[in-house]
Amino acid sequence: MRIARFSIDGNVAFGVVEDGPSAQDGPVIDIIKGHPFAEFERSGRTVPLSEVRLLPPVLPNKIVAIGRNYAEHAAELGNEVPDVPVAFFKPSTSVVGPGDPIVYPSFSQEVHHEAELAVVIGRMCKEVPRERVKDVILGYTCANDVTARDVQKREKQWARAKGFDTSCPLGPWVETGIDPADISAGLGIGCTVNGQQRQLGRTSEMVRPIEDLIVHITEAMTLLPGDVVLTGTPAGVGPLSVGDEVAVTIEGIGTLTNKVIKRG
Amino acid sequence: MRIARFSIDGNVAFGVVEDGPSAQDGPVIDIIKGHPFAEFERSGRTVPLSEVRLLPPVLPNKIVAIGRNYAEHAAELGNEVPDVPVAFFKPSTSVVGPGDPIVYPSFSQEVHHEAELAVVIGRMCKEVPRERVKDVILGYTCANDVTARDVQKREKQWARAKGFDTSCPLGPWVETGIDPADISAGLGIGCTVNGQQRQLGRTSEMVRPIEDLIVHITEAMTLLPGDVVLTGTPAGVGPLSVGDEVAVTIEGIGTLTNKVIKRG
Repeated sequence: MRIARFSIDGNVAFGVVEDGPSAQDGPVIDIIKGHPFAEFERSGRTVPLSEVRLLPPVLPNKIVAIGRNYAEHAAELGNEVPDVPVAFFKPSTSVVGPGDPIVYPSFSQEVHHEAELAVVIGRMCKEVPRERVKDVILGYTCANDVTARDVQKREKQWARAKGFDTSCPLGPWVETGIDPADISAGLGIGCTVNGQQRQLGRTSEMVRPIEDLIVHITEAMTLLPGDVVLTGTPAGVGPLSVGDEVAVTIEGIGTLTNKVIKRG
Repeated sequence: MRIARFSIDGNVAFGVVEDGPSAQDGPVIDIIKGHPFAEFERSGRTVPLSEVRLLPPVLPNKIVAIGRNYAEHAAELGNEVPDVPVAFFKPSTSVVGPGDPIVYPSFSQEVHHEAELAVVIGRMCKEVPRERVKDVILGYTCANDVTARDVQKREKQWARAKGFDTSCPLGPWVETGIDPADISAGLGIGCTVNGQQRQLGRTSEMVRPIEDLIVHITEAMTLLPGDVVLTGTPAGVGPLSVGDEVAVTIEGIGTLTNKVIKRG
């Protein structure tokens, strides 16, 4: 099931994205009553997907991201695969939705795309045992861990390099029908810039699977419903320029597209 | 003015801490109508400070912390004063209030105290010019940037070492009557453990003053009302043990006391 968050008539709503009654009409959103993190039901009231503005599918309290979780990507930047996962935060103020602009930051001359699978947490959890990880996950979406690479090299901690406004596009929706075993088996994950393939990999290449990452993070801290865990990027990262259209696609989820703009 | 957040009759309220009608009764809290980040007025209804439970004075959306901002402290851990400020995040889930326990984390054997002056942001801001920094600050409180030093040494990014649950005590209240010039002039900042002085310094020793830190952070990201900026710790950091009572005192603000407990 694909749960989207969107604006309609000035309000924010959640809904289930599904095929419309006819192929030529395209997908529709069945607006849900209740909240996706609790009990909810479909209202049966549908709107065409093409007529709504999709928003970030969740508003995370925090985003915990894992660096260097694909060996080829670690190598391409001259890094070793670390002994322990490299965990860092992106702030809630970095989140934008599908179609929202990525604003090229004034303090960088080298901004890179990083396509990532994002895990959306469904319930408050701490010290999650490996076999219970599946139960705390609501679903998955696409993320772009946009990074000011030059700043990342200069500054020892990555708060600015990876935490600037608009550096965390999320979307287009949360897919709930995937589980960690599907991810270990391997979903295609890629990134295009202006239609040209830049990154391409499979989630089975992750050095540490989802279960290990959630165990590692929740050993230290509580995750809240709506919190997001980013799981690392495959090889092929590279620069973005003003005017570029960058698209992250994950098999079984969808495509997250954003345009890079100059700040106004 | 000292603005406290506290629980009373099962509700959360804000109030102004002031001297009571007689010295022997101690301070009282005048409950405010409205919200400290907007217009508010005192209700005239007071409760004795000793009868309420103080809560974290704000619930930050994010905490941006600055490492190695006191030269002597950088030196004591064998670090240089960095060319650019070391900025990192602590998550909202790490915040506890005055009197709340610091729970010794299971994944560390070396947890340190770090007394810090905390800046509480009063209004949404981005790219703040140096001369406007004063206008975006609501006030100041005490913080303890509790750090799993062994984990910090092992893990390149500090999300777990400095982001574990209860690693960010804040309080006892927000003092609004201090400004960046007072801090540059120098306020005493110290930390005691079981009554013994461990850290002692003056805010005038900061390598980079508050204004520079806010300019640096907001060059990259939006700060929201209630967000907190931690400004670095003076020399004298050291280990905490289960059972210790740790107190951060800043001149003109007050004392933040927490006890270290074993997880139950």
